[in-house]
Amino acid sequence: MIETERKFLVHSNRFKEEAASATRIVQGFLNTAPERTVRVRIKGEKGYLTVKGKSDSTGMSRYEWEKEISVTEAEELLRLCEKGVIEKTRYEIVCGRHVFEVDEFEGENKGLIVAEIELLTEEDVFERPGWLGDEVTGDSRYYNSQLSKKPYTSW
Amino acid sequence: MIETERKFLVHSNRFKEEAASATRIVQGFLNTAPERTVRVRIKGEKGYLTVKGKSDSTGMSRYEWEKEISVTEAEELLRLCEKGVIEKTRYEIVCGRHVFEVDEFEGENKGLIVAEIELLTEEDVFERPGWLGDEVTGDSRYYNSQLSKKPYTSW
Repeated sequence: MIETERKFLVHSNRFKEEAASATRIVQGFLNTAPERTVRVRIKGEKGYLTVKGKSDSTGMSRYEWEKEISVTEAEELLRLCEKGVIEKTRYEIVCGRHVFEVDEFEGENKGLIVAEIELLTEEDVFERPGWLGDEVTGDSRYYNSQLSKKPYTSW
Repeated sequence: MIETERKFLVHSNRFKEEAASATRIVQGFLNTAPERTVRVRIKGEKGYLTVKGKSDSTGMSRYEWEKEISVTEAEELLRLCEKGVIEKTRYEIVCGRHVFEVDEFEGENKGLIVAEIELLTEEDVFERPGWLGDEVTGDSRYYNSQLSKKPYTSW
């Protein structure tokens, strides 16, 4: 299905006070081409295989297909991934009728914190918490697939 | 898991007389790199997503992970695939305690017929039917991922 998301930088740690959950994510890519990204993810105790298509012209909407797989399968598939596994902690923050997913990156992307909000439509209106920074929707440098190849600390 | 397979050319149509089944296959690739091939397949009434790793030095053994998906999902994912969708008919031929899968290619690979046999080990011994031609195990030109980019009729 088509996912509609907007992405923002986060410059303060204050979001953590509002977080409903914190989950560790390890992920790699079987393909980093924006036309057909293939992602292997371990999120907490679950594994996922996700395929994403190219973003539309706004950078907000993108075809996304996801299947849950076992952690063992995900570990096997991670071994086949391109170099540059991403590690991060995801915080979920309920904000009005939306949820922000805030990713605090580690390793080669340490220092980067990014918030994503999933919207119903590209026109969907949402509350902006005080810790929300500049919008980076559609900026491909912040795609996880690109961060795996050109990590934040190398910019 | 690790799959062990050997591959042969087929120069005669006589295999069809022994075939237990014939199933149409349409498949594309989300990645054609031999280190991490990602294949989307519709086989008869079923869909599959398959990830394969690099072959070992003999070309016989390769990590393979496969998940059944719906035909609708497979159709969606095929739209994201690299150019060069492969169409073929697969014949299954029981031969002693093994099964040959014989693929008769269509479209840009018309004229190519390839037989594959799955073995328990690289030393596993099997019967060779009269229609079995030269072995091409490990010859990457005959990988379906490569046939999608450099089809047989262009050789």
